[in-house]
Amino acid sequence: MQDRRKRDFRGPGGTCKSLPWGNIRKINFCQFCGGPNKHEIPDGEEKVRAICTRCGKITYENPKMVVGCLIEHDKKILMCRRTIHPSYGLWTLPAGYMEIGESAAEGAIRETWEEANAEVEVQSLFAQLDIPLIGQTYMIFLAKLKNPHFSPGPESSECQLFELDDIPYDSLAFSSMLVTLNLYIEDIKVGRPKFHYGVINKRYVGHPIL
Amino acid sequence: MQDRRKRDFRGPGGTCKSLPWGNIRKINFCQFCGGPNKHEIPDGEEKVRAICTRCGKITYENPKMVVGCLIEHDKKILMCRRTIHPSYGLWTLPAGYMEIGESAAEGAIRETWEEANAEVEVQSLFAQLDIPLIGQTYMIFLAKLKNPHFSPGPESSECQLFELDDIPYDSLAFSSMLVTLNLYIEDIKVGRPKFHYGVINKRYVGHPIL
Repeated sequence: MQDRRKRDFRGPGGTCKSLPWGNIRKINFCQFCGGPNKHEIPDGEEKVRAICTRCGKITYENPKMVVGCLIEHDKKILMCRRTIHPSYGLWTLPAGYMEIGESAAEGAIRETWEEANAEVEVQSLFAQLDIPLIGQTYMIFLAKLKNPHFSPGPESSECQLFELDDIPYDSLAFSSMLVTLNLYIEDIKVGRPKFHYGVINKRYVGHPIL
Repeated sequence: MQDRRKRDFRGPGGTCKSLPWGNIRKINFCQFCGGPNKHEIPDGEEKVRAICTRCGKITYENPKMVVGCLIEHDKKILMCRRTIHPSYGLWTLPAGYMEIGESAAEGAIRETWEEANAEVEVQSLFAQLDIPLIGQTYMIFLAKLKNPHFSPGPESSECQLFELDDIPYDSLAFSSMLVTLNLYIEDIKVGRPKFHYGVINKRYVGHPIL
């Protein structure tokens, strides 16, 4: 049920090891002892970390996995319209943060149940898409409905099966969904879907000084 | 350079949503305000989370990605002998935690440089292996050496190219490495390596009451 995607993330483009990627600056206090953190490069490391000024422990922050399903049914694709932020009102494949204690496939099945009240069987991993700038990796599985029932879960206002020609490209929630759907349609044109690994290089967008 | 794999993790087998998976119980203080956390299931969620008793914010914990390379050179595989804990003295493919700001492939290249001083070119993703119990997902890429130079980095005591028949199976550092190498050898027997998605189901091992 959690949804903590940061659409308002702003960071520099390109890779620079010493910069504090992610939300490290927001890790103000030590989760182990409650002491105040400083933000420095620890000895023997190359990245800025949150280091406790009292107990010395480091709180690491790593990329998160977003797991979801591309559900094929009668040559159509199941999509959900989001009724939560970010991307309120826009369309997505059912997907969300993977949890500790589950596999990526189990997480994708769970998210599909939560967002579309749909029971699915996962076929294979279709796409892994890294988004380095925001520290996310999408893993989208091909899946089939176990039965033809689905309806909006608490995070969705609508769930709908779309013909490939009718996918709402102008109102997709995330760039990862655009890339996933394009890869899928390209695969379908020439045969069967196959696994894709790719990187979505979002770029830093500076605010103009007004 | 970070290495925070938890070999001593103990948790229940199987999936139980309400249990505090991972190290949530160690998240004692709020990273945003420093207040003491409680560990409860928040309204609208299904898992125990660390919730601040002062500001109410939740600190989420999610699975981590471990990225690495299976480096083929003259029909041999490059492996590193660990000179750090856990699994001190045991052999591994170069791998480590993915960082925010890099793709999985970039992380695998970086870890190979750090652990084996080897410059590699990534060919394709070979294996994704989820380990739900410890909240880790391994992503191992097939890679080639850009030049024939390698030597132990600070986390390795030795680096060595092994013939497939000579892989040190009795002293491998991690179950993920055993699974990866077995998949690779099976593929090589019948043709070319292909992508594999799989789950390593570690089980809870209870301590006997003495």
